[in-house]
Order: sequence, then C-alpha cells, then structure tokens
Amino acid sequence: MPEYRSQLRASDAEAVEHLVAATGFFNAEEVGIARELVDETLHRGAASGYQFLFAENDGALSGYSSFGRIPGTQSNWDLYWIVVHPACQGQGLGRKLLQASEQAVQCQGGDSLWIETSSRPLYAPTRAFYLACGYALAAQFEDFYAAGDAKCMYRRRLALD
Amino acid sequence: MPEYRSQLRASDAEAVEHLVAATGFFNAEEVGIARELVDETLHRGAASGYQFLFAENDGALSGYSSFGRIPGTQSNWDLYWIVVHPACQGQGLGRKLLQASEQAVQCQGGDSLWIETSSRPLYAPTRAFYLACGYALAAQFEDFYAAGDAKCMYRRRLALD
Repeated sequence: MPEYRSQLRASDAEAVEHLVAATGFFNAEEVGIARELVDETLHRGAASGYQFLFAENDGALSGYSSFGRIPGTQSNWDLYWIVVHPACQGQGLGRKLLQASEQAVQCQGGDSLWIETSSRPLYAPTRAFYLACGYALAAQFEDFYAAGDAKCMYRRRLALD
Repeated sequence: MPEYRSQLRASDAEAVEHLVAATGFFNAEEVGIARELVDETLHRGAASGYQFLFAENDGALSGYSSFGRIPGTQSNWDLYWIVVHPACQGQGLGRKLLQASEQAVQCQGGDSLWIETSSRPLYAPTRAFYLACGYALAAQFEDFYAAGDAKCMYRRRLALD
C-alpha cells in the first residue's frame, strides 16, 4: 500500500520530473512545467499557490497530484497534475490520488475542482477516467493545444455530492 | 495621441498598480496580480511569458495590455490584462491597444487570442467591447469567480480574418 504525503521535500523536484517523463504522455515543455511547479513551491512556499500530494512505495514516488485555488476565484480550484507511474497503473492509485486531492480542496473551502486535458486519442482513457470519477465536460475548445487538438475542460462540483 | 511602447521599465510596476487600482474595477488581489506580472517580467525577462504594451501621454501611463502564449499550446495566446485609465476612456484607446496586441501576437505566430471576464453587470460594457472587437463567447462557467459570478471566455481566431 502506498503512503501519502503532502509535505514537500527538496528531492521531489527531480522525482517529479522523472515520474512525469516516465509516462511518455508529456512533451519536454510539459515535463519542465511539472518540475517548475515543485521548484517554485520549494522556493516560495505556500505563496506559490501550488499544493501537492505524493504517493510513495518504499520511499519511491509512484504517483502525485498538484492542485491550487484559481487566483481571482473564491472557491474554484484547478487540478494541475495527476500522474501515476506506468509500473503502478491499473491499481486504483489515480482514483485514490484524485479523491484525496478533492478532500484537501474541500477542507480548504473549495467547492469546484477543474481539470483540463487534450482531445487526442492518446488521452481517451484519461477522459474516461475523469468522467468515471464524477467530472462533467464543461467546455471543449477546438484547435487549442494545436490544430485538431482541443482542450477539454472538466469540472466537479464537490459541494453537490 | 498616445505613444506606444512594449519595452518594460522598472517604473512600470508601480504605474501599472496605480492604473489598475484607479479603474475601480478590480479588487486588491487582482491589483496585486497585475503588478506581479510586471515584477516577474522585470525579474525574469522574456522567460516570464508575459508581454506588455503601454500607451503613454506625455510620459504618463494612459493604458496597457498584457498577453502571452498559453503554455502547452502552439499558437493560442491569452490576453491577461487590458486597462485604460478612467480619464482616458471613451477615446478608442482600448480598441487600439487590443488591435496592437493582436498584431503582436500574430507576428509571433499566434492564431487565437483568448480573453476572460466576469458575467457581473459591472462588466457588461467590457463584454460588449470584446464582441464589438470580433471576439466570440466560447464558454461560460457558472459560479466560477464566486456564487452567481460566471467566467465568460472569449476567443478571436486571428488567422481567419
């Protein structure tokens, strides 16, 4: 069983970079952004606006999520990242990370969590996962990430459950 | 006639803060975010991802816009801020700033510009302005900024003109 941790450590920056790259889902720019969120939070603390949840097996990172309140909103939050290592997929870890993230958001007064993903076929299991977890497609923006690659925006209203 | 400038100066941080506050449209958190974009770009340069366009009359800031490529996209850009000083409103300066921003985006390969604003009655002239400038409402997210306060997302496909 994985152990969960929300406190950030200096070693998380490299661990997150390796984890995100290992999935094969993200390009170099995206991997850099994932690491940057950790670096910025190590540097600035809670002022970064990013919060994290790490799942570890015997000290090795098996998955993580990152989320934060959307600036300018009272109670809408973004899920920035949710990633499970390929070797740990298919065991319900993603769902547990998502539920624990939702709980952390609710405990801080958040009542909506937003997730964005791509319309590309590669992300079909990802989109199915969000729908299965209670998220609704709020909007789809065509030709967003690139020509033919739309942004799909999912929302779950946590307070309605 | 105002003069336009895209190069950032150290004095812009305070000038932007004063300008944004002077409109009465933005709360303290929003004013802080507006200034933060300038501070971060003064500190990090182009790596911040924020670009600016300043309109000045006799060296005094009469309006400005800020925009940048949306990370993870090839050619979609966000307009983060467009603000005109109350004393300079009604002279077409907002439209000129917006058009000049669109031109700067297109010159860098951008083909869509996005703008977000609130559904509150206070912003009815703002929303009408975006529609008049060729933007279409791409989505509206209810209860986003606060209960009863939706986020309206406008998009203009620059390449289609």
